[in-house]
This record gives sequence, C-alpha cells and structure tokens, in this order.
Amino acid sequence: MRKFILFLFLFVNLKNVNSQTKNQLQWQIGYHKLINDAPVKWLPSKVPGAVQLDVMNAENYKQPYWFGNNFEQFTWMESQYFTYKTNFVKPNLKDGEKLFFHSKGIDYQFIIYLNGKKIHEQEGMFTYVDIDLTDILKPQNELKITILPVPTVAGSRNTMAHYRDNARKSAKPAVSYGWDWHPRLITRGIWDETYLETRNQSYLKTVWVKYQLSDSLKNVTINPVIQGNLLAGKNYLWTVAAPDGQIVLSQKGNLNSDNETIQADLKNILLWWPNGYGKQNLYTNTIQLIKNGVVLESNVNKIGFKTVKMVMSQGSWDEPQMFPKSRSVSPATFEVNGKVIFAKGSNWVHPEIFMGIATKETYEKQVKLAKETNMNIFRVWGGGVTNKESFFDLCDEYGILVWQEFPLACNLYPDEQPYLKVLEQEATSIIKRVRNHASIALWCGGNELFNDWSMMTEQSLPLRLLNKLCLELDPQIPFNATSPLFGMAHGHYVMWEPKNGGEVFQWMPKSKNTAYTEFGVPGVANIDVLKAMMPANQLFPPKMGTAWESHHAFNVWGKNRWLELPFLEEYFGTIKSLENLIAYSQLTQCEGYKCIFEEARRQKPYCGMAINWDFQEPWPCAANNSLINYPNNPKPALYAVQNSLRPVLASAQVPKFRWDEGEMFSCDLFLLNDTYDKIPTGKITAKLVYDDNKELNFLSWQYPNVDESNNIKGPTARVILPKMKSNLFKLILQVEGRPNYNSEYTFVYRSKDALNSKPIITYLNGVKE
Amino acid sequence: MRKFILFLFLFVNLKNVNSQTKNQLQWQIGYHKLINDAPVKWLPSKVPGAVQLDVMNAENYKQPYWFGNNFEQFTWMESQYFTYKTNFVKPNLKDGEKLFFHSKGIDYQFIIYLNGKKIHEQEGMFTYVDIDLTDILKPQNELKITILPVPTVAGSRNTMAHYRDNARKSAKPAVSYGWDWHPRLITRGIWDETYLETRNQSYLKTVWVKYQLSDSLKNVTINPVIQGNLLAGKNYLWTVAAPDGQIVLSQKGNLNSDNETIQADLKNILLWWPNGYGKQNLYTNTIQLIKNGVVLESNVNKIGFKTVKMVMSQGSWDEPQMFPKSRSVSPATFEVNGKVIFAKGSNWVHPEIFMGIATKETYEKQVKLAKETNMNIFRVWGGGVTNKESFFDLCDEYGILVWQEFPLACNLYPDEQPYLKVLEQEATSIIKRVRNHASIALWCGGNELFNDWSMMTEQSLPLRLLNKLCLELDPQIPFNATSPLFGMAHGHYVMWEPKNGGEVFQWMPKSKNTAYTEFGVPGVANIDVLKAMMPANQLFPPKMGTAWESHHAFNVWGKNRWLELPFLEEYFGTIKSLENLIAYSQLTQCEGYKCIFEEARRQKPYCGMAINWDFQEPWPCAANNSLINYPNNPKPALYAVQNSLRPVLASAQVPKFRWDEGEMFSCDLFLLNDTYDKIPTGKITAKLVYDDNKELNFLSWQYPNVDESNNIKGPTARVILPKMKSNLFKLILQVEGRPNYNSEYTFVYRSKDALNSKPIITYLNGVKE
Repeated sequence: MRKFILFLFLFVNLKNVNSQTKNQLQWQIGYHKLINDAPVKWLPSKVPGAVQLDVMNAENYKQPYWFGNNFEQFTWMESQYFTYKTNFVKPNLKDGEKLFFHSKGIDYQFIIYLNGKKIHEQEGMFTYVDIDLTDILKPQNELKITILPVPTVAGSRNTMAHYRDNARKSAKPAVSYGWDWHPRLITRGIWDETYLETRNQSYLKTVWVKYQLSDSLKNVTINPVIQGNLLAGKNYLWTVAAPDGQIVLSQKGNLNSDNETIQADLKNILLWWPNGYGKQNLYTNTIQLIKNGVVLESNVNKIGFKTVKMVMSQGSWDEPQMFPKSRSVSPATFEVNGKVIFAKGSNWVHPEIFMGIATKETYEKQVKLAKETNMNIFRVWGGGVTNKESFFDLCDEYGILVWQEFPLACNLYPDEQPYLKVLEQEATSIIKRVRNHASIALWCGGNELFNDWSMMTEQSLPLRLLNKLCLELDPQIPFNATSPLFGMAHGHYVMWEPKNGGEVFQWMPKSKNTAYTEFGVPGVANIDVLKAMMPANQLFPPKMGTAWESHHAFNVWGKNRWLELPFLEEYFGTIKSLENLIAYSQLTQCEGYKCIFEEARRQKPYCGMAINWDFQEPWPCAANNSLINYPNNPKPALYAVQNSLRPVLASAQVPKFRWDEGEMFSCDLFLLNDTYDKIPTGKITAKLVYDDNKELNFLSWQYPNVDESNNIKGPTARVILPKMKSNLFKLILQVEGRPNYNSEYTFVYRSKDALNSKPIITYLNGVKE
Repeated sequence: MRKFILFLFLFVNLKNVNSQTKNQLQWQIGYHKLINDAPVKWLPSKVPGAVQLDVMNAENYKQPYWFGNNFEQFTWMESQYFTYKTNFVKPNLKDGEKLFFHSKGIDYQFIIYLNGKKIHEQEGMFTYVDIDLTDILKPQNELKITILPVPTVAGSRNTMAHYRDNARKSAKPAVSYGWDWHPRLITRGIWDETYLETRNQSYLKTVWVKYQLSDSLKNVTINPVIQGNLLAGKNYLWTVAAPDGQIVLSQKGNLNSDNETIQADLKNILLWWPNGYGKQNLYTNTIQLIKNGVVLESNVNKIGFKTVKMVMSQGSWDEPQMFPKSRSVSPATFEVNGKVIFAKGSNWVHPEIFMGIATKETYEKQVKLAKETNMNIFRVWGGGVTNKESFFDLCDEYGILVWQEFPLACNLYPDEQPYLKVLEQEATSIIKRVRNHASIALWCGGNELFNDWSMMTEQSLPLRLLNKLCLELDPQIPFNATSPLFGMAHGHYVMWEPKNGGEVFQWMPKSKNTAYTEFGVPGVANIDVLKAMMPANQLFPPKMGTAWESHHAFNVWGKNRWLELPFLEEYFGTIKSLENLIAYSQLTQCEGYKCIFEEARRQKPYCGMAINWDFQEPWPCAANNSLINYPNNPKPALYAVQNSLRPVLASAQVPKFRWDEGEMFSCDLFLLNDTYDKIPTGKITAKLVYDDNKELNFLSWQYPNVDESNNIKGPTARVILPKMKSNLFKLILQVEGRPNYNSEYTFVYRSKDALNSKPIITYLNGVKE
C-alpha cells in the first residue's frame, strides 16, 4: 500500500485506523559474474541503500567513499550481478487478507524470485513494485532480487565528457555515469522503502485528487479518483480539512467499482502560492474505507489549489519583425493563480550519490535553505533522479515550484521500441505519483536535448511520447520538450571567458532571453569540505593528479575547470595560500552570481526566470558551480544569491568586474520589485568604499513610486576611481529608511603597476583548450 | 462502405466482385430561420455541392457567382438553417443484409432525421457519416439533414483582416470567412459522396496497410489492419500486385475478429519516390472477403513504400555558438528513403470555393501541372479543407509529397473541451483516411500559430492533442506543431517594400532560414480571367470600388495590395493600358519568384524547402500571389517557376532588380544540382541582351564537376551597363552543350532622365499604410 506522509503541520485530528500492516525485511546481498551463479558469500545489506555501500561496509573498503580517489574502488562492480536475499515466515492471514511485496524503487534492471521461481522482472527504478504473494506462499519463504549489471551501450565513448553515452538507451538517470561535477559511480540496488504488507481484501491503491478551480479562483470542484481493490458496495468517508484544520467537507458514500471518481464543491477556498507570493495553503484530503463502521484504511493527501501556466512574456510576441519571418519565442514565464511569477531558483541535482540513503531529513535541510534564499523554484534536471515522495511534500510545504524533468539528459535517446516501452512505463509511474502535489509546475522532457551535443528534435519519438503522456495524465500542468527552448538560454558557467565576450558583466546585459534556466559561476569549496575530501598535503597548492582533479577542479571541461586558477591569478595575482585561494574564488562566485541573477531580474518582464546551475552537489567537489557543498554546507555564494533574490532591492548594473586605476567607474541604478506590493518613493545613495573604509559618495537618486511587480531604472552614476591601495573595492547602495533594500558589490581594482606588469594576453594563451 | 478509387494506371486484372450496392439519392433543399421551421419551399439540390449553389440555380441568382460582386448575394444565408430532404423506398434486403446511409462529408454542423426522428448529429465536415438504418426503416422513408447556421464567435472582429476570428472555436476551415485573396463566402452543405448502401452482414469498413521497411529499404513487412463487421471464421484473400501488375503476394486465411492485423514479407521491393528523385512505384493491395468461394467484397489500396523524416540540415546543429545559448533550430529538411530531398513546391489552397463541386478531374489538372512545374511538394495549408480522397490518390501517382495541416489557421484556438472534442474527432478521421497514402510526408497543426496574430504556443492543448493523435495513429510520419517553426520563415509577399529592406533581391540573400514555406510575389491576372470577372468598362484603369477591389487588387493588406500599382508605376512609369499593366505586373511576379526560388536553392544544404504562397486560387483574383488563375489558367509565373525548379540549372544571384544608367552590373554565378547525378564539368557564359537584341558577353566560367545533390558557386561577374533605349534588359546564362541548363532574367533599366524626374521618396509616401 502506498502510504502518504502526514505533514508536521497537520492540525486535523484524523482517526487513521489502518488495519494494514507493514513488515520490514532483513536483507543480505551477494555479487556474482553470471546471472545464475550463486554468490560466493552473503553480506548484510541495509535497505534502502545501494549495493556499493553494502559491500563497502562488509568488506572493509576505504571510507568515506568521497575521500580522495576512493570512489574508484567500486568500478569493478559495474559488470557484476547483485542478488538480495531475505527469508520470511508466511504470516497468519485472516479471511480475504493478502500479502504483498511492495517496493517504491529498485535501481535499475532486476528479476524477483520467490522460492526459486521468477515472479517479476522489470527495467526501471521509478515504477513501484507491487506483487500479490498470497497464493504462492510456502510456510518458509525465500525472496530474492537479482540486479542486472549497469546498462551500457556498445560503442559508447568512454571519456569523462561522454560517459553518459552509455545511458542513451535506458531510462536510468545519466549522471551517475560521470558528469563534470560527478564521479563515475553508477548506483544500483533497492533505493526506496521496501516491505511486505498484509492487506484487507478491500484496499486503496491510489487516490488522485483532481480538482478544477472556478474562473474566479474562489471555488473549486474536487474529484478524487479512487483506485484499488474496492469491491462492490463498500462505504467510504471523504473529509477535507482546511489549512487551519477545520473540516470543510465530510461526505459518505458507496464505492461500486475499483476505479471511482467522486465529486464535491468547496467555496471560498484558500489558494496555494509559491514562496514570496503568498501562503502555502494546504488542505488535507482523507479517504477512508469503512466496513461495518470500522475504518479499514485511510488515504491522506495534502492538496494545494493552484493554476499554473507557461505564458508569453511582455514584449515577446512583438518579434520577429522583418520578413522572411520565423515564429515568436517559446513561452517561458510562469503564471500562477493568474499572476505572473518571476521564477527565481536553482537546478536541483541530487543531495547524495547514493539516493537510497537520502531521507526526508536530507531533503528538508536543503528545501528549507532554498526558501530562506528567497527561491521559489527548483528545476529538477533530467540527468538526475526523480526524487522520493518526501521531496515533493516538502516543496508543497515550503512553496518551491517543481520543474520536473524526465530522465533524459544530453543524449540522443532513440526512436526504438524497447527504449520507448521502458520510458512509457517509467514516465507514467512518475506522472501518476507527482501529479498530486501542489508544487508541480512544469513537466519537461529532459536536459539540453535540442542542442548539438544531444541532437534530439521535435520529431524525436521519446519526446512526442512524453508530451502525450503528460497531456493524458496531467493536462493542467504545462509541458516543455526540453530546456532551453527557443528564446530560453543555458550558460555560461564561468566568470570570464574572452572567447565568449569577456566577463559575465559584459555578456549578460547583451543577452536577451526569456529565461535563464542554467548559468553558473564556479567557486572553490569551503575549507572544511576540502579538508574532508583530501589528504592535508594535497591541499595547497592545488595540482592535477591529486584529489583536486578527481574532485573536479581540473580537466572536466577544459583543463582549468572548475578551479579557473589562471583566471584567479590574472585578476588577483599569484595566490599564495589556501585561504586566499578560497577567498578570491568564492568572491568571484558571489559577484558573478549576483550579476547574473540581478541582470535577469532587470530584464523582467521580457525575462521570466533565473535558475542557476546548480543548487547542491551529491559529493564534495573541490570547485563547482554549486551554492551548497556536500553534504549541506552553504558556500558564501548562497548568501550572495539570497541577497540578490530579495523580493525588493536596490540593484546596480555595472559594466565590468575589474577596474583600472584612473578609470571612470559607472553603474546604472535600479529598484527591483518582484512583489505585488506598491513601493513608495524613496532615496538611494551610491558610494564607493575602499582601503580602510574610505567612502566616496557619488550619487543620490530619488526613485518614484514603484508599481506592483515592476522594476524602475534610474540614473547612470559615474565617478573617477580614486587611487586605492587595496585590490578590491565596494559599491554600496543605501536605501534611506529601508536597510533591507540595501545592496553591495565588490570589484577588482588594478593599479597602474599591476596593469603594466601582467598583459592580458598571457592569460588568453593560457586558457586555450 | 468506403470505396477505393482504382487508378488509371492499374494494370492488375483484379476481380473486384462486390455484392454491395450504392444507391444515389435525389435531394431537395430548403432554408428556414429557426431550427424547427419548415422551409417555405423546396428546391432541387445537386449533391455533392453547396447550399448556395442550389439556391443560386433555383432562384435566378446572378451568375457566375464570381463575377463582380455577385458573391455578396449569398451573405444572408450565413444565419439560415438549410434542410436537405430525400425520400426512398425500403429496399428488399436479403437475410442479414443491412442498409446504411453513408456520407463522406457534410459541411459543417448538422442533424440527421429519419421519418421525423433524430438519428444523428455531428459537428465537423471531415468525419464520414455511416449510419445503419436497417432496423428503423419504414416501407416509405424520408431522410432529412438540417445544416445549422455557420459557426461564429460572439465578439469577433468583423473586418476583412479578422473575419477568421469567427472560426476560432470550430474545426471549420477558416478561409471561407474571408482572406486577403478569398471573399467572405462561407460554404455549407453536403460536399462529398453521399448515398445509401446495401451491405452484406459481413463487410469491410477500413483497411490500413501498415508496413515497416527493413533498414536496407530493400524488404518490407506489410501489416494490413482490417476492420469491419467481419464475423468469426470468414475467409479472406489477400493479394499484392507490383507496379508492373505482377502478383507478388497471394495469401488466404480466416478473419476471427472485427479488428484483425495480418502480416507478410516482401523482398526486393521498389520504393516510392517523390517527383524528380525516382519513380512513383505503387503496389496494389487487395483484401477480398470470401464466403463459400464467392467474393463478398473487395478493398483495393494503392501503397507506396517509403520512409520520411524531418531532419536537421547541414550546418544547423552548429548554432548557437555563444553563451547564454538557446536551442538549435527545428529540423526542416525532408529525408525520403534515406536521401535528403530539396522540397520544391507550392501552398495548395483549394481549387474551388465550393469544394463540393471539385472532382478528381479538377484535382488532376492541377496536380499534373505541379509535376510539370518540377514541384515535389504541396503544403496543404490549415486555412483550407483537407481534400477529398482523389487528391491524395493523384499526389501518390504524380509524386507530390503532401504536407497536410489540420484546419487551424491564424487564430487562437482555445484550450476548451467542446472545441477539443470536435478537433479530436475531426483529426482522427483525417489521419485515419490519409495515412494510407504514399504521398503523406508531414502532419502539421496549422498555419502561423506561433506568431503574434495567432498567439498559440507549445502549451496550447489543441496542438498537444494533435501531436498525440498523430503519434498514436501515424507515428512514422513527422509532425510539426505549425509553420513556421524556429528557423523556418514565411513571407514576404511583395516584390518591393522599403520598410522591409527594399527589394526581394536584397532581403532574400540576407536571410538565413532552414525553409521558406511561404513567400509570394503578386501578379495581375491573365486578361481572359480579368474579362470574366468584371464588366468591360471596369477593366482599365483599375479603380477601388470596382471588381478590382472585390477581387483583391486593393485594400486587402494595405490599400495597394495585391495590385501594387504605385510600385509598378515607380518602376515602369505611368501605365497606360491594360496590356501594359498585365505585362509589367506579371514580369515582376516572374522575376520575383525566380529570385526567391533560386536563392532558396542556393542556400541549400542549410535550407531544405522552397514553397511559395500560393499555387492556385479558388475564384478569380484580379491580382494575387497565385501561379494559376481560377479555374486552371496558368500565369506566366508558373513557367518562370518551372524553369527555376529544373533539377539542374545555371543560376545568377543578382543584387537588385532595378539598375541605373552607368552602373556596374554584377551577379554571382552558380550551377544548381538537386539530382543525385554527378554533373560533368562545362562552361557557362553570361551576357546582357538589350534594345534590339544587342548582346554584351561579359564572362565565361568553366565550372568543375558537380557532386550529387550539390551546388557550385562560381565567379562574380561585373560589367558597366551600356546605355540602353529600352527600360528592360536581360541577363542570359548559356551552358555550352546543355541548353536545358540555360537561364535568363529580366531587369529594369532606368535612364538618367527617368532617374532625375521621379525621386523615390514620392513612392515611399504613397505606400504608407
């Protein structure tokens, strides 16, 4: 039976009298070369988990697996079979009761045997396994699950940049094959809750709480679709509790088939809003199966009522102008409950390499951080897994919209039946599970599929299939084939690249995109994270061939990424300590991210989204675009982003990051307002702060009243840079009486001496890849 | 029963012993204001036809309806109900026989009554009506069909440019509401074959000949899907005849259900190719229902074996280059049987306003002309109807690929259930009918839906629905949501517009598009066509308020379109006769079309299509982009296009159409090859011809061997223009020993006197709209 999590803030006093019982199993695991081999030995297994972790714990592997090159000790396992084994006694089943084996996730291709007989086989880790064992039970039973070797495709290119080729014919998330911030460490095993369950003859399988809001958004018609083994004539009790716990609907009836849709209207409901735009009102929908006055079973769902659309942004219909004329851009602005939302957030990769060990607590720490960072959206990227149920519960609760991709990323997935069949099964399972959630805002086929490194197109059958499935199973949620679509954009992922036009400060204002759904600026890890991943003698200076390289500081996308040491030394001179390296690298990450997030916001309303690459990392990276180090260690950039994403703030558009002695510094001032409040007129002063708190006030701007969800562009402020001793200076914007709107930015100052001693051409040659 | 047309070139001697009988009916028609009114009088009706034609013929309306403003006499009918009536005697039905009423098309919304009782109602003109009357027959029967008033949408803008708004919530093709080359004349009535049919108890309903080609394209697995009232245990005989008539498959068996799929393999088959790339090999698939050795019924289908894909053109994956990076363009090149095809053709609108009177002969004249014009594709545009069956038969036979759009054009079709339901029904009917045809190459949601005058997007449910239906019902044919998609382009539709960058000679070479799927250059009609549409006293000079205006020479898209008189007078001086007007206008149409078609071909392989707007017209237009005047009267532009579409030709890219005295004339020379033949080296000479056949040779180019399906760019030729007396001169390219590759172009010459006397600014002011 699928169990629905009761929320922390569930005020309703529900009498959840459930006569079903769940029995956890004790598992053992063994590995073998051929499918029918018996394992040489059986090791204890922790479920949910991963085969690698069981072997590591039982066989004295080096730990932690993320230290140094320890992850390489798992490579041999890719070609092995793994078999899980458990024994259990047939339970006493009352009349009509049944015993089910249920698993919410087995990764990735497997066969299940009971007492030596094959009872199930499956490809796909997102489809729940639910098998009625009742009629084939013996007094003593042995259940085995054999996990097949990892899917690979013959002829795939086996280099870091192309490991993912191996996943191009399967629905296994490609990331674990290796990515530019992820080692090759291909997970397998039972990765979600798995147990035996005794069920009544009559039981609920799924409840999908469909609803339709009235045009006014004040009233709703709710249609729970109840599926299960319901038997003719069973009674149900349906209650809905408001967010404050008050019961607003209570209705009894009979279920006459195994697939029933019931209906009721609620008036004057409270809408669910994403973070920053209103409360996350969640109703509690409870369906109880009742027989002779006894509650056989309860199904509890949290529901948030909302509408969501993907709409054209202001100005985007006006193009193209000249003939021959192509189409207008794809819509890329969210409208929630009839209000345009500026989507501010991050690409969620995953919080653990071994998602089997991720729990609600793992998720909650990070979802909570996103809310505190003023984010309202996660793009759950197609390279990674579709998260466990508790992730969506938390996004519902914290008001984080979920852009959910299917497991396709950076590959040409084929128009072939075997693949399409697995994809259909997996996508169907994913949609049916997630569609109940208030937070689901967008379905998306996968990552960067319409670019030359993937080579999929509108004609690709996997994407046409996903469009069809989403239309059939969840038609009220928008569907995008991939990201980016026409007008949207990904990249860049560094602070400075001359061949892309210089600094992010230059290329961002020149870009005109409807949504920035990936962009990154790398930063070195926090010092404790670095110390946890490598021997002390490797810490400084960073070198190739050390844990710096295996943890993605070198040679992952060009030889200098993600550390970008030549850039750092070009800007800051020779770096002489680990502390300085971290400080400078993290400073550029902070300022780069502020530049992009604020520029995207300044481009509103044409632009509707700013979603950086990426939020967290599933293991400690020595340098990475992430805002949070593994396991849950925020980098300074997280707080920089938090500031840039405040609902209202003063913002400066500055033409560059590095300034030279004697130059005319300039910046354009803005007041940004993402709220639906009007901001009364006020005053912003701009000053430079340098050396030992020397201050140079150079502009005061009386900004006008600012409309709802509107930005105001103010004056261009200019000042000749004073001669400084330090190589850094700050621009501070102070808003009179509104310190919560204040902003500050740090820039690099280059004295004439430094300027003359290090011609820029040196670096240009250095980064040639 | 659906009857399949036997082709003219069917060499197989098929014994099509069909015991079914079709009975044509005699119809009367009447009109009334309210649905339940009886018509005041009954008029004779010709079926198939249109309600307007019946009333016109019976009530002495002015004829022909296309003369002057005669079309306006039908306007009052839009709000009327029309009822068709017929009487028939119950036939003698043998044991088990049934009587069906069958209609292949009733336009648009209607109710059918038998003996006063409603037996069917339907919205949609593309779904066959098929009603078993057997059990409700009386000895004497009266069948009535009431056609509802034309669909309209309250609040629609009722001006020429927006008449189509009225069609935005229906699946009725929008064109008849009025377009810039089509009067408002909204067709209704029985528009395709309609009859009573006596059927055996066992009968075939549809046969869909599915097939799968082997990777080598040499062998095929055929899977006819047979549906009908087949009864258990009936025998079938399945034969397949090769294009030469030889029977290559003969197989007997039993049909055990009403929906059976049978299967066989054919080896070494001949592929079907589009015109210009190979033969149109058509096999004849025959399914016969047999009982006790008697053929009860035969179903004959022509099948052409082909694969078709929409692929990315050469170079189109290379973009975009810079970050932030959007997606690559949409694929827009056809690949047929593994070979890239340059799609050359025209937008098929329709050959008659009243499609009820279009016959196979109507179609054949025009499809044949397209083949002779070296075309290989029709885009059957979403503003018009999906053609009758014989159109597709002819496209199969003549090798014209069909890009078939659903009936959506230039409107925001809604995400609403009533509309979606009708669209699903109509699209399903269309797909199931057309998918049998060799010529079907692309399904498309409709016309210009992703531009600001329509405002649909990827998220629009009607388009997601169409994508889903095509995937389910015809997955081997590509699907585009609309035209243009990203990278493709529509327009412009005139020879010269300063605000678009001047002449088509300037804006086309600057454009970089993957496909030009609409573009036009207007030309005045042929003189006999003009005389047939207006009184002699209106012929010259052309004036607003006359038949010139009602026939689209003025005020249809700006006040001077499609005549473009200010442009003609700017280029050719005051025009003093009808003959001169026609000559100059048709010259610009010829040269404009040659410029665009050849430029698109020169942009191969990045560009994959050139499809002009439009092929024909459904009534006589005084000026229009069409290549063929109504009813089937080619304009000179058709022959100009025929030349530009030759498989191999010498071509000149010329920077402008009008040249001034003393200027340096220049052109870039090309040899264009769309064939899969290699062209051996040869010599092209370029000369100017002017005044009384004066010749000025100015370049000779020895072109190299030209690869398969490849173009070669040659030198830029330059010459100072000699002083001329005439205002026109020609550029002639002569290919030594290959006169069939020769090309010639005509340009305007402006002497210093003309140049000084008519400043261009005069015209610029004149066209301001």
